[in-house]
Amino acid sequence: MVEIRTPITVDEAVERVMKYAFEGTKELISFHACDGRRLAEPIVATSNVPSFDKSPYDGFAIRSADTIQATKDTPVTFEVIEHIGAGTVPEKEIHLFQATRIMTGAQIPEGADCVEMFEKCVEYTRDGRSFITIDHSMEQGQNVIQTGSEVTDGDVLVEKGTYIDPGVKAVLATFGYAEVHVAKKPIVGVFATGTELLDIDEPLEPGKIRNSNAYMICSQIERAGADYKYYGALPDELDSSYEKMKDVLNEVDLLVTTGGVSVGDFDLIPEIYEKLGAEVLCNKIAQRPGSVTTVAHVNGQLLFGLSGNPSACYVGFELYTRPIIQHALMNPCVYALRSKAILADEYPKTNSFSRFVRTYVTLENGKLHVHLAGMDKSNVVSSLARTTSLMEIPPGDKGVQKGDEVEVLLLHVIERQETFR
Amino acid sequence: MVEIRTPITVDEAVERVMKYAFEGTKELISFHACDGRRLAEPIVATSNVPSFDKSPYDGFAIRSADTIQATKDTPVTFEVIEHIGAGTVPEKEIHLFQATRIMTGAQIPEGADCVEMFEKCVEYTRDGRSFITIDHSMEQGQNVIQTGSEVTDGDVLVEKGTYIDPGVKAVLATFGYAEVHVAKKPIVGVFATGTELLDIDEPLEPGKIRNSNAYMICSQIERAGADYKYYGALPDELDSSYEKMKDVLNEVDLLVTTGGVSVGDFDLIPEIYEKLGAEVLCNKIAQRPGSVTTVAHVNGQLLFGLSGNPSACYVGFELYTRPIIQHALMNPCVYALRSKAILADEYPKTNSFSRFVRTYVTLENGKLHVHLAGMDKSNVVSSLARTTSLMEIPPGDKGVQKGDEVEVLLLHVIERQETFR
Repeated sequence: MVEIRTPITVDEAVERVMKYAFEGTKELISFHACDGRRLAEPIVATSNVPSFDKSPYDGFAIRSADTIQATKDTPVTFEVIEHIGAGTVPEKEIHLFQATRIMTGAQIPEGADCVEMFEKCVEYTRDGRSFITIDHSMEQGQNVIQTGSEVTDGDVLVEKGTYIDPGVKAVLATFGYAEVHVAKKPIVGVFATGTELLDIDEPLEPGKIRNSNAYMICSQIERAGADYKYYGALPDELDSSYEKMKDVLNEVDLLVTTGGVSVGDFDLIPEIYEKLGAEVLCNKIAQRPGSVTTVAHVNGQLLFGLSGNPSACYVGFELYTRPIIQHALMNPCVYALRSKAILADEYPKTNSFSRFVRTYVTLENGKLHVHLAGMDKSNVVSSLARTTSLMEIPPGDKGVQKGDEVEVLLLHVIERQETFR
Repeated sequence: MVEIRTPITVDEAVERVMKYAFEGTKELISFHACDGRRLAEPIVATSNVPSFDKSPYDGFAIRSADTIQATKDTPVTFEVIEHIGAGTVPEKEIHLFQATRIMTGAQIPEGADCVEMFEKCVEYTRDGRSFITIDHSMEQGQNVIQTGSEVTDGDVLVEKGTYIDPGVKAVLATFGYAEVHVAKKPIVGVFATGTELLDIDEPLEPGKIRNSNAYMICSQIERAGADYKYYGALPDELDSSYEKMKDVLNEVDLLVTTGGVSVGDFDLIPEIYEKLGAEVLCNKIAQRPGSVTTVAHVNGQLLFGLSGNPSACYVGFELYTRPIIQHALMNPCVYALRSKAILADEYPKTNSFSRFVRTYVTLENGKLHVHLAGMDKSNVVSSLARTTSLMEIPPGDKGVQKGDEVEVLLLHVIERQETFR
């Protein structure tokens, strides 16, 4: 008996799944381990920057008032009373016609209100004392980086949810965040299904293939910023599969299976979901590949029944599972960045469903171009290795031509958008 | 005495540095640990894909010759003699008017040469035996995925140097690569310089700032795919700094310092390089920020003297150090992807040097737009947190306007280009 399923649109499927997006929790981790995580709290400035008036140059700190009369013909002389590097605090206050030799980044001494660069001063020594002359007038505050001119104590500098990259780390370090509140990585359980699966180190046998989907999904989970627990392959047997799946539900935040969602005689996932008391959110989506992608929930906990077909499995994860992970990671932009792009190849196939074609993008003169990653039979694994984007072709009775404008979802970039469309 | 240095162009500096690019070595690691590494050898198919004729559908495998006479009015009947799932090997050969019930991915039995989907057959049972009828003719090979039709044993599937992502892992798993030859991560030594530096967990003190550069650089090194060894801050004292730097040279592949390269009184890096017998490749580059970026080598080992200024340090690393790391990682595309983009903001500053402005990019209708990441004073750290690209403004007597076409270097994408221009 073949079950008839009514297909829903991709947008409808996304909406149904996202209703079960769950809030992530946060954890406090060492600054040194926070690369690639996401901020669970904004970075707030804990001091002014700079925290003192400082010099942008190597030069001499003086009182601008003393330079009012200075001209090429009548230069003004200053005695150099102190010599300080960055990190050394000036000890002497500057008075009339005195100067402090000062290095880039060093604190301006009391009394001084401007700095002139070495190159614009003439230095000389007399009787063991140091002097400079300046032949032009200076303004108050000239060449002085004022306290708080870059950042004011309490400013919000980086938003919650931001991916921690080298620039964010520089800000964290500047403000003394030795520990950082980051979004905890959700834990995604993974089962493969099917007795046809050999493990990666097993030799090929007649009728069998190696399990590539589960490892691909684990890698997609890691790329999305979550942790995975791989529980191996479920046998093609209902009761033991059900028991295994039920057992791990309390160890994971969400559960992914690959395979077993079609209407074949050994496709047990729908029955297992039923036995678990899960509510099915979708089991037929108007998309290729991956129309059989099945999503359900048990008491709000999401179960993703991805196709056993490698590219359908890949696409199903990116479209439906990844946004759930991003939400738990507090990333406000949960969806893949969608952009128009110019198709660099032919794609004459017609579709009755939306088609997500494995592609990669290039930038040419500032315009996005999209190229086919290879043969687009849904069972071809090798073109996945070139995939950095998915081209979405809406249902229609003609294909797309070279040079046509198409839509792509970018997978390998950090920047993403806030809404699905 | 102020030393006069003659500036060279950025292109010239890149060329001088890249002459000392070194070959990376490879190591064999577990498949399970290879995410984010780069292939040191191409992936070669170790079998045909599929390795047997298989079915793309749930259906019935039959002999096409038996359907020649089949029409709506005169359907042909087949007896179903076996029932196999994916991973189960067919045991019975198909003869005249026999069929095998077969699941998606399963091996086609001997004798059969086509498969018809469940939906297009009529099934019935009589006297405990199963039959189907088919009311149309089939072609030889119809709905059969032929052995080797996707991949032929020995095909090169993924090139050396490729970044290992989920798609590449799927290919590795398919062909049984339980261990993978990857490029060994080069080890980059890091020293900060300057007594003005406080560590991340120290409270602020007058005249001092926290060390953010070294940690930022460590994060940039990790993002580039290399390992770092952080040796702390060098004191502003020549001999001990020299000894420390000399000691670590045999522990690292290249060495990065932050700060100490200007012509200030406490800028010791040039003297240390001299004492080490290093040949200076550049010490003044016609760029802002980071004109003082100094690169030298001792017996071919590169020493990067980056500026102490946060954004100059950041830019210097991305322009000069990162390509060296990429080369060691066997990535043929060592440079940041350069693209034209439309400037979304004003940038009226004029330059006598090439300027690398901290920016971030967006895609709008398939066109790249570039936005200023914040104030572009080279001493402002917080805008680094928004930086995903560097806008390059060539030297000139006018700035650039909103809507102008400019060039950007993209930092946060995996795809890069092979040449600097």
